[in-house]
Amino acid sequence: MKITIIGAGNVGSHLALTLHRAGYSILQIYSRQLLNARPLAEKVGATPIHQLSAVSTESELCLLAVKDDAIEVVAQNLSAFLPKTTLLAHTSGATPSTLLSDAWANWGVFYPLQTLSKGQPADFTQIPMCIDGATPAIQQALQEIAGQISHQVHLVNDEQRATLHLAAVFINNFTNAMLQASHTLTEEAQLPREILSPLLQATIQKGTRQEPRMAQTGPAIRRDQQTIERHLRQLANHPELSTVYKAITSYIQTF
Amino acid sequence: MKITIIGAGNVGSHLALTLHRAGYSILQIYSRQLLNARPLAEKVGATPIHQLSAVSTESELCLLAVKDDAIEVVAQNLSAFLPKTTLLAHTSGATPSTLLSDAWANWGVFYPLQTLSKGQPADFTQIPMCIDGATPAIQQALQEIAGQISHQVHLVNDEQRATLHLAAVFINNFTNAMLQASHTLTEEAQLPREILSPLLQATIQKGTRQEPRMAQTGPAIRRDQQTIERHLRQLANHPELSTVYKAITSYIQTF
Repeated sequence: MKITIIGAGNVGSHLALTLHRAGYSILQIYSRQLLNARPLAEKVGATPIHQLSAVSTESELCLLAVKDDAIEVVAQNLSAFLPKTTLLAHTSGATPSTLLSDAWANWGVFYPLQTLSKGQPADFTQIPMCIDGATPAIQQALQEIAGQISHQVHLVNDEQRATLHLAAVFINNFTNAMLQASHTLTEEAQLPREILSPLLQATIQKGTRQEPRMAQTGPAIRRDQQTIERHLRQLANHPELSTVYKAITSYIQTF
Repeated sequence: MKITIIGAGNVGSHLALTLHRAGYSILQIYSRQLLNARPLAEKVGATPIHQLSAVSTESELCLLAVKDDAIEVVAQNLSAFLPKTTLLAHTSGATPSTLLSDAWANWGVFYPLQTLSKGQPADFTQIPMCIDGATPAIQQALQEIAGQISHQVHLVNDEQRATLHLAAVFINNFTNAMLQASHTLTEEAQLPREILSPLLQATIQKGTRQEPRMAQTGPAIRRDQQTIERHLRQLANHPELSTVYKAITSYIQTF
């Protein structure tokens, strides 16, 4: 299968390299700056392009790995240069398929659910691939490709993918914010950073072996109001953290 | 050194077993119910007792592993039966040392910073031991004992320990709540549980290798208001989660 990758950023780079290693023929790499497309194109034996009009009509699959805001307009522009039989798939967690289906009959979604950084190797076998497509045949085709690079392939519709994106905010963005909060506090108390690492490890182990609320401990679930009030007094100089503390405490008390 | 352990719960059990294995002589195990003290006492070759008046005056170290609320009154009661030269240490993260020092000259703190469950083995070598004491000699004595069971021993004063306890709430209680939030969302969308596991693993890796705020991604830090508003609409049926979402989003925007 001949694949063109539109975008040479985090997702485009990782997908190009991974699909190339899996034996797929990467025809072209597009970036608005030819300079950005060239090093990646060299690595995967593709032609670098910087104009959508240069996209090859031989592409069987065209993977859109551009910013979410650009997906709709790039899809519309490509429809002037590619035959309608080409399979066009975006790689975004946050973007509904309707942004493709308005301009394109053979649309698909090929979304790697992971935080990827350019230049940092990622083991795609461990990355869940979320697939969707206009028809069962397209879904099957994309599932087969995904199965060549990952052990975890899921058929995920628009509504599910929107939920997944929101859940990812809690598990990644918000968990990272909890790490920052404890980091700030221990740093202010001049305590060494590694002091909380064993607790974090145990937390993740306990919370992933069972339903997390079954592993919940602490003053919120015990409704230990004295400790909660003492903690809030300690946070007097951190109004944002105080608000976070109250909000999560109330949430835990619904468990 | 002869040690008496007051309390046969999670912390008392783990400390008795671990100190016994490290070669310390455990004289007595106290529990209000003799039935609770007996099995643990047998394992470590100690005498089970259920009355504070039975505490041995030969104890050189008396470790208080009772509930936070009980520490003050047990310390006061023990002062009627133990010589003032006995070293009395509590094992609590949340309790200031003043609750001991009011009744006791030779007070100390011997706090294992970890979430412990009775019956589940814990590798104490990886558990940070937080030490405090009335005098440098007591601090040194407790640091030496802690060093026999753990690779991580820290001298931590009352104020630092209070901060540590609060930071532990963020890293354990609140992180676990984030896991529960994403679990609830993916379950409602009928997605398999393991789909977010790789993202959680990458989150912890990235957030512990550097200052977590440097690893922050997502709509909050990007100030992507459209996505934030879409997420809040998705949370319409989860008012507590909606409040959590807003609070953490505001906090991230202070990074």
